[in-house]
Amino acid sequence: MTTDNVQMWKELGIDLKPHDMLMNAMGHMYQEIYLSQDNRPHGMGFFDFVVGDIHGIRVRELREHAINGGKVVATYCVFVPEELVWAAGGIPVGLCAGTQFSVPLADEVLPRNTCALIKSSFGFKLGRICPYVQASHLIVGETTCDGKKKMFELLAEYQPVYVMEVPNKKTPQSRELWLREVIAFKEVIEKLTGNQITAESLSEATDLVNRRRRALQRLYNLRKVRPAPISGKDALLVTQVSFYDDVKRCTQQVNALCDELDKRVAKSEGVAPANALRILISGSPMAIPNWKLHHILETTGVVVICEESCTGTRFFTDLVEPETFLDAQVKSIAERYMNIHCACFTPNDERLDDIVNLAQEYQVDGVIHYNLQFCHTYANEAVRVERRLEEAAIPLLRIETDYSDEDTGQLKTRIEAFLEMIRK
Amino acid sequence: MTTDNVQMWKELGIDLKPHDMLMNAMGHMYQEIYLSQDNRPHGMGFFDFVVGDIHGIRVRELREHAINGGKVVATYCVFVPEELVWAAGGIPVGLCAGTQFSVPLADEVLPRNTCALIKSSFGFKLGRICPYVQASHLIVGETTCDGKKKMFELLAEYQPVYVMEVPNKKTPQSRELWLREVIAFKEVIEKLTGNQITAESLSEATDLVNRRRRALQRLYNLRKVRPAPISGKDALLVTQVSFYDDVKRCTQQVNALCDELDKRVAKSEGVAPANALRILISGSPMAIPNWKLHHILETTGVVVICEESCTGTRFFTDLVEPETFLDAQVKSIAERYMNIHCACFTPNDERLDDIVNLAQEYQVDGVIHYNLQFCHTYANEAVRVERRLEEAAIPLLRIETDYSDEDTGQLKTRIEAFLEMIRK
Repeated sequence: MTTDNVQMWKELGIDLKPHDMLMNAMGHMYQEIYLSQDNRPHGMGFFDFVVGDIHGIRVRELREHAINGGKVVATYCVFVPEELVWAAGGIPVGLCAGTQFSVPLADEVLPRNTCALIKSSFGFKLGRICPYVQASHLIVGETTCDGKKKMFELLAEYQPVYVMEVPNKKTPQSRELWLREVIAFKEVIEKLTGNQITAESLSEATDLVNRRRRALQRLYNLRKVRPAPISGKDALLVTQVSFYDDVKRCTQQVNALCDELDKRVAKSEGVAPANALRILISGSPMAIPNWKLHHILETTGVVVICEESCTGTRFFTDLVEPETFLDAQVKSIAERYMNIHCACFTPNDERLDDIVNLAQEYQVDGVIHYNLQFCHTYANEAVRVERRLEEAAIPLLRIETDYSDEDTGQLKTRIEAFLEMIRK
Repeated sequence: MTTDNVQMWKELGIDLKPHDMLMNAMGHMYQEIYLSQDNRPHGMGFFDFVVGDIHGIRVRELREHAINGGKVVATYCVFVPEELVWAAGGIPVGLCAGTQFSVPLADEVLPRNTCALIKSSFGFKLGRICPYVQASHLIVGETTCDGKKKMFELLAEYQPVYVMEVPNKKTPQSRELWLREVIAFKEVIEKLTGNQITAESLSEATDLVNRRRRALQRLYNLRKVRPAPISGKDALLVTQVSFYDDVKRCTQQVNALCDELDKRVAKSEGVAPANALRILISGSPMAIPNWKLHHILETTGVVVICEESCTGTRFFTDLVEPETFLDAQVKSIAERYMNIHCACFTPNDERLDDIVNLAQEYQVDGVIHYNLQFCHTYANEAVRVERRLEEAAIPLLRIETDYSDEDTGQLKTRIEAFLEMIRK
């Protein structure tokens, strides 16, 4: 924790005392969960470095950008079309939070029966312990789920918030609404940044984001191999960091990591034995630093080889189709984002297909459906996921949890029983 | 329970044994909660009769209608424009459920952390103990909240369901979506019934529903008087019955009741002393037979004089503006329904205004904000309601509960403390 950092945090209005506690806790947790792993790819070094200075170097870059007149846009959902922010010269940062630390802060305001992700994210603002949101000029919310939708109304009392309406269905009229929402969002970003988005700048931004998507697709494809060349924990971290790191740099680092993993695959070098059980996790997103389930699983010798979630496949599946003219580009962006198979849509049968297909492509031994407690969309969809996986004879364990340690013992017991059953 | 009824229930596929238990329980509950009240208006006799044969006479009418080729449409939300159903010669029945009895049935399928209203409604279908849904040809769902939105996907496995998309915001593009949804719904109903909706039939249906709205507005206006001429329990029951009774008959009966209440008002005759505390309840709907909170309150000597909820003001506030031509009529209907101040919208500041205005118009001594446990929309909005009422110096108690008896003791204690505080 450098003096420079402390000065910067002061200027951003950070509440230093609890923030110090958080940074210390993060440091210890990272050591225990990440640095204790064996045979990690060297390419994870960049991500270790980033997390080691998680509220330092990247925040500094955002501040630099702001001092030079640039704008920072905080987002909390993969539906927000970041291409438009990059195209206007802004920097988008994904700020969904995954730590129990900030949850009690939110408990002072939000209803008790709110999911941990919402509470954690809100708590970071309320408690003034997140320099990213402090450095943001605009928060962009969305109407994906009831909890978030209403939380943004309260967040707006602390910082400017603009809410995008994500439809509930995928009819032609729903798609029309979404296109108009994306156009409205474009205008909001242009006004915020003072920069007009052109076909050229949008084409460039789209290409940058697509390249990052391809890099992450490449990373995930490498996890289809047996033995898995990288742990699920590490892959999850890479995805989590890509929500807020510089898009170009992130792409470079992920590709460099994949180059190394290619070599491991050529040598059949894995992070676990070839016969280690392979698990797909599907459901609610796992925001940084939510590593709870991966840690429980991978300390049993299992390897998590895919995440079907917003901090997984739903983040980078599908590229935006390039177009020449601005209107068509915006439409292409809207179409790509409308194709996210989130449980906030009804129906969302495509996700049921996705899970079955991924389970087959990744040669999984079992699927764990993960939803945060009070997450109505994913908790309800789990019912149909269960029926579908039963038809497909794919073993499934349904888990509902939060960010605390209270249920870790129970989870371990249930998971061990599940793994035992799969092994037979 | 007549033999005719039993035969009819058999034919509808009702599971007779649990259904008997439910009917018996209802009978006892109604005696204890309703028939024990003093000085009830005679006009409540119709409603007592209806509830006394709650799965008999009205169901018979629906069956008669079906035998003659008519269609019955089950709905679970005030957003569904019933005018279109009546106009096509169909009969809409509002089936949101308010009993703990059917909740355990739903617990076999739905996530545990689901609100009681959703569980109760779903449980009625799953358990085959509701002749209304059994008699329905189509269930119409909507995307108002996450829990319901995803529940309808599961309900669709038991009976045909059509889901209307209710927007999340009130922008021009949201309103456009809603208008197109209403038009699509009109087409669905025309196809179901085999009847084309004409300007004439829609005009007539709109007039019928508007008349019922005016009758209920009249009833509520009478409750503004001190002393209140009717109990909150009785007024709530009238609203609840109007969700599924014949629209013309219901209007007649409500007006007849109001004629009687006019006379009471002229004589300053109330159901409680003039100095009885007057309470407004605001929040989640209370579906029949959810009388829990009203009963706790009114057995303490308080009178509930208004409900700001979907089983209250949000049901009948605003008439549909009559129009001459069909397109304009449909647009007018869409506009009226878009103006419902439900917490599923963001923002929903109008509701905050409503509560303050109603508190003043109804001369309340205090407001109770009521949300069902796991109802994210209303639970979150309660935060802003609390702040708004504090600014307006209107005493508020926030309650979160379900349909069971488990928390009745706690609720009584909290309510008594609140009333004590108001009395000072």
